[in-house]
Amino acid sequence: MVDKKKFQFTLECFDASGTQARLGKIETAHGSFPTPVFMPVGTRAVVKTMTPQNIKDTGAKIILGNTYHLAVRPGEKYIQEMGKLHRFMAWDGSILTDSGGFQVLSLADLRKISNKGVVFRSHINGDLYEFTPEKVIEIQQCLGSDIMMPLDHCVACPATHDEAKEAAERSILWLKRSKAVPLDENQVLFGIVQGSVYADLREWCAKEMKDLDMPGYSIGGLAVGESKKDMFDMLEVVNAILPIEKPRYLMGVGTPEDIVNAVSLGTDMFDCVMPTRNARGGGAFTWKGKIQIRNSHHRESLMPLEPRCQCYCCRTFSRAYLHHLFSKGVEEIMGLTMLSLHNLTFYQDLTAAIRKSIKEGNFKEFKQDFLAQYQAGSE
Amino acid sequence: MVDKKKFQFTLECFDASGTQARLGKIETAHGSFPTPVFMPVGTRAVVKTMTPQNIKDTGAKIILGNTYHLAVRPGEKYIQEMGKLHRFMAWDGSILTDSGGFQVLSLADLRKISNKGVVFRSHINGDLYEFTPEKVIEIQQCLGSDIMMPLDHCVACPATHDEAKEAAERSILWLKRSKAVPLDENQVLFGIVQGSVYADLREWCAKEMKDLDMPGYSIGGLAVGESKKDMFDMLEVVNAILPIEKPRYLMGVGTPEDIVNAVSLGTDMFDCVMPTRNARGGGAFTWKGKIQIRNSHHRESLMPLEPRCQCYCCRTFSRAYLHHLFSKGVEEIMGLTMLSLHNLTFYQDLTAAIRKSIKEGNFKEFKQDFLAQYQAGSE
Repeated sequence: MVDKKKFQFTLECFDASGTQARLGKIETAHGSFPTPVFMPVGTRAVVKTMTPQNIKDTGAKIILGNTYHLAVRPGEKYIQEMGKLHRFMAWDGSILTDSGGFQVLSLADLRKISNKGVVFRSHINGDLYEFTPEKVIEIQQCLGSDIMMPLDHCVACPATHDEAKEAAERSILWLKRSKAVPLDENQVLFGIVQGSVYADLREWCAKEMKDLDMPGYSIGGLAVGESKKDMFDMLEVVNAILPIEKPRYLMGVGTPEDIVNAVSLGTDMFDCVMPTRNARGGGAFTWKGKIQIRNSHHRESLMPLEPRCQCYCCRTFSRAYLHHLFSKGVEEIMGLTMLSLHNLTFYQDLTAAIRKSIKEGNFKEFKQDFLAQYQAGSE
Repeated sequence: MVDKKKFQFTLECFDASGTQARLGKIETAHGSFPTPVFMPVGTRAVVKTMTPQNIKDTGAKIILGNTYHLAVRPGEKYIQEMGKLHRFMAWDGSILTDSGGFQVLSLADLRKISNKGVVFRSHINGDLYEFTPEKVIEIQQCLGSDIMMPLDHCVACPATHDEAKEAAERSILWLKRSKAVPLDENQVLFGIVQGSVYADLREWCAKEMKDLDMPGYSIGGLAVGESKKDMFDMLEVVNAILPIEKPRYLMGVGTPEDIVNAVSLGTDMFDCVMPTRNARGGGAFTWKGKIQIRNSHHRESLMPLEPRCQCYCCRTFSRAYLHHLFSKGVEEIMGLTMLSLHNLTFYQDLTAAIRKSIKEGNFKEFKQDFLAQYQAGSE
């Protein structure tokens, strides 16, 4: 009998239409979900504008939390005292927490990076923090997430080959130290492959991490400003090396097109602020492309955002009404909530359609049809 | 057989414990609800942060729309084209619209007021508008509200006796003209009693309007800066004159204490932005008084906002978590939504408890207990 508390990834089938796409299932102590999966981002213990019920209504079963943001405020010890992250934010599904590595390097006032770890000042109040590989695991143990990320060294884009090599070496070193920390049995730690846009570094880093036999692998340091070609080239290099029986998580990606293309290259897990951030700016995803609800041609449209969508927003409101909510000087909060709900539902519907097509062996055709339709209609 | 389309007020019983409190029922083309009733305010075709489902979940069956705001943006003709207000905002319960008189005098750049009407510039874009009694009815016909208000002349506080007298005279004149407009049978028009804080004017205005035999009466021009004593003195004067079989609506009131006290004086209907506006500022209503969720002593509280409350927020979240959502630099929108949901539920629970006590003949005791408990605990 399988211990329900333990992380498990089961590969169920491969796409039969000539892509690398895979259908799978992940089990955690907080439930199971099929892959490819999209994970909404709950930076500060909340997926922006969404209640836990809203998130469930979109179909999502796993969300992200940000280690850096939560450690800085309200603090991981406090969240632990409040019953850990699941109880604190009242989310009983699965939670993946990132390592904070990316935020430390992009948001914080970085003081010093060494093999020991990173010393930085919080972007909020200037307080001094030190993140070491061990400390980052400890923080995520306080948070109680189901899937943890190790501290990694994520370089800016562009980075020189030397910079990227040093960061990849350090990420491997840090992963080894992270792995040495004793873990609770209901939490797992992934590896994060770095190497910027250099195929040799990506290949080497992926191989080193493969040897560490992690339960899953993240591909980090992409979608940080490089070209789409570079991103997919690196993904292809890395996925060719990572063990087939482990889940692959492309961090921080992406647009609907990016997700479809990355699935085609054998990627299983995704997260991105795009559906919620776009929503707050009036952007809504539809099968015929992304629309901007503020555009005047929606003012008299009695159709829903997306006729095929079954979310509360699409069942209830016209584009005309949503346009009103987003119009200058009105700018009603409920509009932000409704577009967030819709966009997150769209991402869940997209991954559900991807999974269905893999199961039916026609992902390649789905991908072509989707991209043609989606790209033709975007505003 | 009663025509379900027509407005009807049925008085069901009086309080048997020595107050003027009354229990009743209002029927409109969009459903029925018991009185005393609290009506959430949906200024711009939305109760701030709330979906129609959220509003229903609080127990509310009638909401307010603001004629001035909707006429200025998006415009009443547009809303009519979009299927009128109920369809536009997807609210199938009852709607009461105010006359815009109060907003014209408090928000707009007023150009001219005469017996003909008011000419003003929109506070949004400076466009010139003219509201006449006939025009305001026409706007509300475009909106399709169930209960309409006539254009009234609401004076600032303090106002001299002469100013208040002129405004009351004009409000009576305008009500007569409003009443002469042919109405759809599923809409009704109330009268709005003015007279500032002058008992003689209130008495006279109430008598004049009583003679016009309106289906209901609003008490306007109160809660605009006068003392509580003045407000309740005027309410007492007016309620003593208004016909017992017609509903009485105290516009823009108020705090939980105000509502309980006004019910005690025989008032049936209330509206106020307080539950939603307070919510957005971190204020939450409980049976033990109003609390401020930002206060540091809530930081480690695992209790809900109000243990007796059954709203989603209280069933789901701790004060600690809500404190986090409202904390400086976090300020998550979902917190505004949750406190709004809770506060509107509290107001519905309060009016439900008021009605229960009237029915059971112990409103006086309820009132004493409520006020003692509520006032002792407010932060």
